[in-house]
Amino acid sequence: MEFKARLLDLEAGGKYIVVMGDEDAKRLGVISNDRVRLRTDGGEVMAILNTAEEFPKGVLGVYREVGSRLRLVEGSPVRVGAAARPESLGFIRSKIMGEKLMPKQVEAIVADVVERHLSDVELAAFVTALQIHGTSMEEVEALSRAMIRMGKSITFDRPPILDKHSIGGVPGDKTTLLVVPIVAAAGYTIPKSSSRAITSPAGTADRMEALCPVDLKMHEIIDVVDEVGACIVWGGALDLAPADDLFIQVEYPLSIDPLLLPSIMSKKKAMGSTHIVIDIPVGREAKIQTVDQAQQLAINFIELGNRLDMKIRCAVTEGEQPVGCAIGPNLEAREALEALTGDGPTDLVDKATSLAGILLETVGEDDGKRRALEILRSGKAEEKMRMIIEAQGGDPEVTPEGLPLGPQSLDVTAERSGRVLWINNRSMAQIARVSGAPGSKGSGLLLRAKLGDEVEEGEALFTIYAEGEGRLGQAEKMARELEPMGVGSHIGEKMVMLRISEAAAPGPERYIIDR
Amino acid sequence: MEFKARLLDLEAGGKYIVVMGDEDAKRLGVISNDRVRLRTDGGEVMAILNTAEEFPKGVLGVYREVGSRLRLVEGSPVRVGAAARPESLGFIRSKIMGEKLMPKQVEAIVADVVERHLSDVELAAFVTALQIHGTSMEEVEALSRAMIRMGKSITFDRPPILDKHSIGGVPGDKTTLLVVPIVAAAGYTIPKSSSRAITSPAGTADRMEALCPVDLKMHEIIDVVDEVGACIVWGGALDLAPADDLFIQVEYPLSIDPLLLPSIMSKKKAMGSTHIVIDIPVGREAKIQTVDQAQQLAINFIELGNRLDMKIRCAVTEGEQPVGCAIGPNLEAREALEALTGDGPTDLVDKATSLAGILLETVGEDDGKRRALEILRSGKAEEKMRMIIEAQGGDPEVTPEGLPLGPQSLDVTAERSGRVLWINNRSMAQIARVSGAPGSKGSGLLLRAKLGDEVEEGEALFTIYAEGEGRLGQAEKMARELEPMGVGSHIGEKMVMLRISEAAAPGPERYIIDR
Repeated sequence: MEFKARLLDLEAGGKYIVVMGDEDAKRLGVISNDRVRLRTDGGEVMAILNTAEEFPKGVLGVYREVGSRLRLVEGSPVRVGAAARPESLGFIRSKIMGEKLMPKQVEAIVADVVERHLSDVELAAFVTALQIHGTSMEEVEALSRAMIRMGKSITFDRPPILDKHSIGGVPGDKTTLLVVPIVAAAGYTIPKSSSRAITSPAGTADRMEALCPVDLKMHEIIDVVDEVGACIVWGGALDLAPADDLFIQVEYPLSIDPLLLPSIMSKKKAMGSTHIVIDIPVGREAKIQTVDQAQQLAINFIELGNRLDMKIRCAVTEGEQPVGCAIGPNLEAREALEALTGDGPTDLVDKATSLAGILLETVGEDDGKRRALEILRSGKAEEKMRMIIEAQGGDPEVTPEGLPLGPQSLDVTAERSGRVLWINNRSMAQIARVSGAPGSKGSGLLLRAKLGDEVEEGEALFTIYAEGEGRLGQAEKMARELEPMGVGSHIGEKMVMLRISEAAAPGPERYIIDR
Repeated sequence: MEFKARLLDLEAGGKYIVVMGDEDAKRLGVISNDRVRLRTDGGEVMAILNTAEEFPKGVLGVYREVGSRLRLVEGSPVRVGAAARPESLGFIRSKIMGEKLMPKQVEAIVADVVERHLSDVELAAFVTALQIHGTSMEEVEALSRAMIRMGKSITFDRPPILDKHSIGGVPGDKTTLLVVPIVAAAGYTIPKSSSRAITSPAGTADRMEALCPVDLKMHEIIDVVDEVGACIVWGGALDLAPADDLFIQVEYPLSIDPLLLPSIMSKKKAMGSTHIVIDIPVGREAKIQTVDQAQQLAINFIELGNRLDMKIRCAVTEGEQPVGCAIGPNLEAREALEALTGDGPTDLVDKATSLAGILLETVGEDDGKRRALEILRSGKAEEKMRMIIEAQGGDPEVTPEGLPLGPQSLDVTAERSGRVLWINNRSMAQIARVSGAPGSKGSGLLLRAKLGDEVEEGEALFTIYAEGEGRLGQAEKMARELEPMGVGSHIGEKMVMLRISEAAAPGPERYIIDR
């Protein structure tokens, strides 16, 4: 049937969506969410149909993505026909029914995801089925390979290519800002692509952006790495794993993350990485809660690395409290700079040099941690960091004090004297978000005490920074409600961490899907 | 933040959806698919947010549902704030993680479905999790009760209220058109609400619509049933189970049906039914494939009936071939009328009188099947059917010949002499759909031979009826490809039913979700 296009001036998040009236749909023999094939003299594309009760006959509403793909103008003729359901839908159904998918089937699904042939409903069902049934190593490998094949890749002509990744879940983890310059100062290539915060107060890209631009194009990244051997950039616009970006859109509202392994590893492979250290923080409020789970995940990372020809080492790290004291883009960038100049918190320095050390050992160095510490203490890591900042277009003379903090601040104080017995990471992250991070760069939290520290009644536990009174007040209110730090005179004294008074499932909290 | 409304002149399938630019969303601290709360001086509603890269600042695009709910005009001021994620999302997540839901949690989910607080992604994840983990009887009961509570109910002041339901999956099943008048002629009240075809060539509402209007309002149904003790109407617009209609929108593209029990039983309860016979056809291409599965389902129906205070009896019926010979609205209505006048196919008459008999026995009659057969043979069922047709606004003098068939027809013939060894229901249904059923009332198939019948080479196996040459040709082509009937000289001779030559999962066929 022939229709006249009506440009809807709306986006559909990258999907190809068209709209027609119920009557037209009936005549075409299709219903809402069916796929239709659109043909013009210039091209052809498959789209997902929405129907509307009231929509003019013979008119096809097109979202912006369809309009630009087919170069339609208002009134352009478009021939529309019912399209067969994509074969991959049968494979998704197989997975729902508990079958293991074969590599070709996985590839068909990923290809149809990238081609936008699958609706949100179908994608959501697929990731839910993956979450519930789990994925075999064969499926994980096939998913990774398919995601790599559908995305762009980058080749650096200076092997080996080192990399570091944290599966996340611990606020304030600015370790990458130390590991990258340490490893690069040791003479190795480490082009780090990182993500912005989705649900956390700061992602590595947000932290680095406090120091220099991170939104580099592929060729700019190659130049930077050629020049200084390293970069810390935002990977989101590089189109390394377009399938993953689409999966995340449905995983995020569901707070599930069944594609963790292929998502991370496909991006590493696309960046050309050959030697990688993966940080798996373990904590009751972290992404991984037990050392057993962390070990299983680590084994899977290593095995997947073997299959994809990458050497992987994993580190299970302490994740019961934030890393360092700062949470929020500028606060964290400040703390990282301080650590690079030799004045960093013990846990941050230990974590960064340990991970850098493991990485150095994967390429044959001995006693990696000692070497990493030496590089850090010698000032070579700081020097390298300033070179990276300059190469990416930032000010190499940047100082911690040069990074502004939210002009409004207040201390949340201890209601009694004692020791810090526990810290709730998730509550800390929520308070930092409410204070304005990461959108407002100077907002966030600065911890004045950490696990085991002695505090006096009335002494500051942490300081909240915000842009305005409103945000500050909201963050303070939340801090009073959530009570993110427990203070008591000795361990075991303040055992109640949370009270539950209603027969409801745990709240639909925003699980940390940032990777 | 305050926005100005822009009316988008688009529907979102009943959901409340609004659009704003990425920048505005960022300032509001929300991302695509987050929920926002909209406030005007006149009202308040929760909506799901879509974001667009290019969208004017300060403008909120509103889909028609939001516009009419809040009575917005172009430029109306709307205050928009981030809304908490609904609590039910946590319960959906619990179900994904394999937990059993408590009744209050189920109720919260169903309420949020009906209130449109959940996105398609979330709904799809929920039904997928139900499909994979299964539902306990407690969950099924809670789902049924919640679906009843969220919908409209009807009360007929003449107990007992009898009803009949088939879980479907067998083409040509016009049994209801006999059972209802038989039971009503026996003096009982049987207000039957039925569905239109979604994926099959005809639903009961489509068959009845060949004889009279079926799209009656609630008060009209009450009048009809008061007058003649029975009706056969379309239940789709009665708002009996609005949650179910929304679930079906996501179940259908996935071809899964985890809510079968609560969906059926909530609608029966809403119609005030007290005694119900449920038909469970078993066949290799039917919805239920084995007698064991059918028995388990029957037990569940009966137990759920006990809990909801309804007396349920189930019949596991032969579903290896179509019921009777006709497939398609007018063809089936013809066959039903003929059967009511004493001239029906053996299987249809046997099935209808058996089911009617079981139903009569649930209210205390003895020897129900004999009684049903007597009523049918006496002409009282036909008489009652004509009263129902008249009460619903149709012509009580309607004759089988008065129902027109598609002017184009052709016979699909046997390529050799022998017996009909098997019939593929799914292929038959597909061919009938391609011929134009149910949209074109006179289209469909008429079987000239059924299982075990002798046919000569060149003799008709079935006749295809269609409106035009195009449809007829397409249906014939499909009939040649699918070969829906196997003919051989003795059983065991034609063992190959389907050839599979590619390592692909079974095609994403449209599973029969009509209920």
